[in-house]
Amino acid sequence: MNELQEIVTFEELRIARASLPEPVGFVPTMGFLHEGHLSLVKRACEQSASVVVSIFVNPTQFAPTDDLDAYPRDLERDRELLREAGVDLLWIPTPEEMYPPGFQTWVEAEKITKPLEGAKRPGHFRGVTTVVAKLFNAVQPQMAFFGQKDAQQVAVIRRMVRDLNMPIEIVASPIIRERDGLAMSSRNTYLNEAERQAASVLYKSLLAAQSAYKKGERSADSLRRVMEGIITDEPLARLEYISCADYDSLEELTVVSGKTLLSLAVYLGRTRLIDNLVFG
Amino acid sequence: MNELQEIVTFEELRIARASLPEPVGFVPTMGFLHEGHLSLVKRACEQSASVVVSIFVNPTQFAPTDDLDAYPRDLERDRELLREAGVDLLWIPTPEEMYPPGFQTWVEAEKITKPLEGAKRPGHFRGVTTVVAKLFNAVQPQMAFFGQKDAQQVAVIRRMVRDLNMPIEIVASPIIRERDGLAMSSRNTYLNEAERQAASVLYKSLLAAQSAYKKGERSADSLRRVMEGIITDEPLARLEYISCADYDSLEELTVVSGKTLLSLAVYLGRTRLIDNLVFG
Repeated sequence: MNELQEIVTFEELRIARASLPEPVGFVPTMGFLHEGHLSLVKRACEQSASVVVSIFVNPTQFAPTDDLDAYPRDLERDRELLREAGVDLLWIPTPEEMYPPGFQTWVEAEKITKPLEGAKRPGHFRGVTTVVAKLFNAVQPQMAFFGQKDAQQVAVIRRMVRDLNMPIEIVASPIIRERDGLAMSSRNTYLNEAERQAASVLYKSLLAAQSAYKKGERSADSLRRVMEGIITDEPLARLEYISCADYDSLEELTVVSGKTLLSLAVYLGRTRLIDNLVFG
Repeated sequence: MNELQEIVTFEELRIARASLPEPVGFVPTMGFLHEGHLSLVKRACEQSASVVVSIFVNPTQFAPTDDLDAYPRDLERDRELLREAGVDLLWIPTPEEMYPPGFQTWVEAEKITKPLEGAKRPGHFRGVTTVVAKLFNAVQPQMAFFGQKDAQQVAVIRRMVRDLNMPIEIVASPIIRERDGLAMSSRNTYLNEAERQAASVLYKSLLAAQSAYKKGERSADSLRRVMEGIITDEPLARLEYISCADYDSLEELTVVSGKTLLSLAVYLGRTRLIDNLVFG
């Protein structure tokens, strides 16, 4: 098993990075790792000569009303999981070094950040693209691994990498699910028992729409209505949005053809969950 | 003398870049090269193991009312000058490949782009930082060379590199001047004979303010008034702005102390010229 080296500053990263065998695979995370993260790390270890993982709960992608302070943390456990997975370098930058006084440069994708999560969380994706650009520039990976769970995030980062000519391959890994279909998320820990049980309704609604599609339904509105019906039947669930959109541009569809992203956001109590499914 | 290799596409660049000895020095230009550019190229050749020059008249840093179409071009001559200077790689990307359909990701520095040139040319620096980030990502240089002539551009790019953790050293080279003090610029070719003669008034005003500073003047307003008096005495000149600002932040000063940037923009007929001087 590799030795896991742990670093904090950009200068430590620069020195450690210089001696890593290439290609370098990079998995940026906000910590509190679950099976979903570990599937990314595993894939990175398989596909790269060395693997860097960052843990950084990025303040600029949270709104003032968001759950930044409440975001769950367990560094001891994360460290152990990454050691077992065979990661070479764990980078835990500080907010102070990431955003020093005078910081003022932002990376922003336009159209693709406007719908879905972007519509509900203004400024969120500007924070994401900015911090990911910073992490990429500092780590200089050849490959970076993201979870398909955050489908719009993957689409936005792919767009950024293409538009800004970053020499990095973006690899998206499938959603890892609990037995009842709930997509793994650090936020699942916020759910009480009843909410946890009700939370499988997100995936059920996606499967129902997929099933309708497989039976020949091509009206995007009909697929959205299938999902909506299932969510509204669950008394603990409160629907935020349902989308049936083009996979690359995230534009809402009228008629389904080509690669399609079904996605939704649902509140269970005060916890906001998202899920998605790709077909076509 | 080196062989000058000339390329157009990102793919050609990727292949050529892979075999360049490091450190790689990079000089991004808009072409129509003059002594100012060549001083940057010369410095790049002295300080780097290989040198890449780009020629790209970047549409996103021109406003619709700007002089994009009229911007002077002479590729034959540029090519010959770069060959003589010992440049390794000349990259002439196309606007179509730089900004393909669907392009939508921008890099933007905030506060530092607001005064001076940024105030007169809204959107200009967003175009500059975006294209420079793209060029940097594609060329992957260790050093990049800019002219101090565009003082705010240098400050903005330094800010971007620091904020986004780009592993690139920014080298700013002194302004190269004609015999009468006029700063070299591709736009000088727009001047008629009378305007050309009057154009030395920009540097004269900077020297007069510097002289007042050396005699002990520390009021920024007084230094601005010295400059303003000299510009308004020239009938062909029309003042746009005069600034006495902190060198790093570009904030206007009340009392001069520390590193200071005197700068101004002046119209001679329809041609807009800028100049600056650093002291302290």
